[in-house]
Amino acid sequence: MCFYIVINDILKGLKNQEHKYIAQAISIVENNSSLNKNLLLNLKTSSMESIKIGITGPPGAGKSSITNQLIKKYRFEDKSVCALLVDPSSPFTKGAVLGDRIRMRDFYNDSKVFIRSIASRGSKGGLAENIDYISDIVEFSGFDVIIYETVGVGQVELDVVDSVDTTIVVLVPESGDDIQVMKAGLIEIADIYVINKYDRKDSDKLFLTLTNMLQLADKDKWIPKIVKTVAINDIGIDSLKDELAIHRKHLIKSNKGLDKYNDRFIKKIKHRLISDFENSFWNKKRYEFLNSEIEKDINDRLDIDSIINKIKSI
Amino acid sequence: MCFYIVINDILKGLKNQEHKYIAQAISIVENNSSLNKNLLLNLKTSSMESIKIGITGPPGAGKSSITNQLIKKYRFEDKSVCALLVDPSSPFTKGAVLGDRIRMRDFYNDSKVFIRSIASRGSKGGLAENIDYISDIVEFSGFDVIIYETVGVGQVELDVVDSVDTTIVVLVPESGDDIQVMKAGLIEIADIYVINKYDRKDSDKLFLTLTNMLQLADKDKWIPKIVKTVAINDIGIDSLKDELAIHRKHLIKSNKGLDKYNDRFIKKIKHRLISDFENSFWNKKRYEFLNSEIEKDINDRLDIDSIINKIKSI
Repeated sequence: MCFYIVINDILKGLKNQEHKYIAQAISIVENNSSLNKNLLLNLKTSSMESIKIGITGPPGAGKSSITNQLIKKYRFEDKSVCALLVDPSSPFTKGAVLGDRIRMRDFYNDSKVFIRSIASRGSKGGLAENIDYISDIVEFSGFDVIIYETVGVGQVELDVVDSVDTTIVVLVPESGDDIQVMKAGLIEIADIYVINKYDRKDSDKLFLTLTNMLQLADKDKWIPKIVKTVAINDIGIDSLKDELAIHRKHLIKSNKGLDKYNDRFIKKIKHRLISDFENSFWNKKRYEFLNSEIEKDINDRLDIDSIINKIKSI
Repeated sequence: MCFYIVINDILKGLKNQEHKYIAQAISIVENNSSLNKNLLLNLKTSSMESIKIGITGPPGAGKSSITNQLIKKYRFEDKSVCALLVDPSSPFTKGAVLGDRIRMRDFYNDSKVFIRSIASRGSKGGLAENIDYISDIVEFSGFDVIIYETVGVGQVELDVVDSVDTTIVVLVPESGDDIQVMKAGLIEIADIYVINKYDRKDSDKLFLTLTNMLQLADKDKWIPKIVKTVAINDIGIDSLKDELAIHRKHLIKSNKGLDKYNDRFIKKIKHRLISDFENSFWNKKRYEFLNSEIEKDINDRLDIDSIINKIKSI
């Protein structure tokens, strides 16, 4: 069957880390060709084989610079690197994609660096499931390092955090206001904090605020480290890389890396089951009934409980 | 039945806009007492009865100040106001909640202002569904104005946007870098842009950038307005309120308000169906089988397709 040949080509291409096939596999996921997608989902991956890093933080904190510098450092050790830039999907963000691509042009001709922007919402509205698939694809491709760079704070970032082993939260001195920092909700997701643009004023104040805040952290757990950087000048990036290695050792030694892998494994199964449920549940008759209710005046509609019961009974 | 009496008390309390009962109803949702929750979901609401505003943007942009000033303005017209502050849920963010409460103390003794922080992730991991319920509760309570204030950019914000009629995206002059603004993914969700702290430098540059960007917007649709504010000094807030009224008129006239209501109605039904599916699907036997696979060495596990088929067949 022609179809299987294509999938086999892709699988072989992935194993050889050929960019063309990695891009093709990610497109299959993003375009939601369910059948191919399901085949791709069964790519066998392992725990703690790639170094999987998430980089998040508010817009303008310098996440892209840090990603760039880390790629350079890992390339210096001849490690292959995949960087996935998670953008909120938008017709306008094509500009952002381009912007990132321009900034990433240092690596344009490096066959061991694969960079791709991925939309945070697929055609069906969910990032979470797409991230599962894309994550499997790039892990299966055997990159030594996989970096997810994501903007902002929210469900998207929490999905990304679930997909990596080590999460870096990037802040800038201006993030210093105690309440704002806490409000950013970045506290409990960070394994490592980076205070970037440390040459600006108020850096020490933010360092102190963070240090004090981390006193509250559970001593039995990993206490997040704070690294000071000026990413565009390559200051502090080596320390960051050292901290990444220390956290990685901690994950392996404490078996937490495996726990994270298992959580992802379970999550994938649950997502798949919901997706299967939705695909099989919503047939033409059910949609027709729902639409007939929506066409009514608000006050003439059945209550939601009754609509649900009726839909189920069809 | 005692149970129904309690629910009836709550319903009556909601209709009278009694804070105690509103808080109690929201707690029922947040604590996920499913039975009570289902009763609350059937609260009848209408389209475009309350003024429903979402305020989002990066941390530190001044969203709380804008919320505060808007509450004051609406109170001046004797409108009742409900402000829901959506925080990424975290053991640490208790501080943030407190922070907001302190800032909101202007309204502590005002019985026509109800302010509440709500966690962005419920015990089951989803904001989306909880927002549906909470939204129904506060709408049913008949507040004239409902404001959702939320931090950051991501799925959480998109869920909030789905729950309101008008979305305000707050930026500050420092958000000016073209690429960063676009990357923030805030473009297509805004009905109104606020450039806050307009007294700072680079404000005009950001105004120009935004104006140029909006040229790209679809002319047949609503073209977002840009309002300049210095919220802490009450500069520009009246203009913002005027723009809110204009957008509201547009929604009513074009029937888009009703479309939004219907989208929410459908979304609620779909969420409920998924939730029902998950509750009935995951029984003890299925969990036991899943756990037995997880306990195996990674390489000895079945592939995910086989696990899913097996689980379904149990």
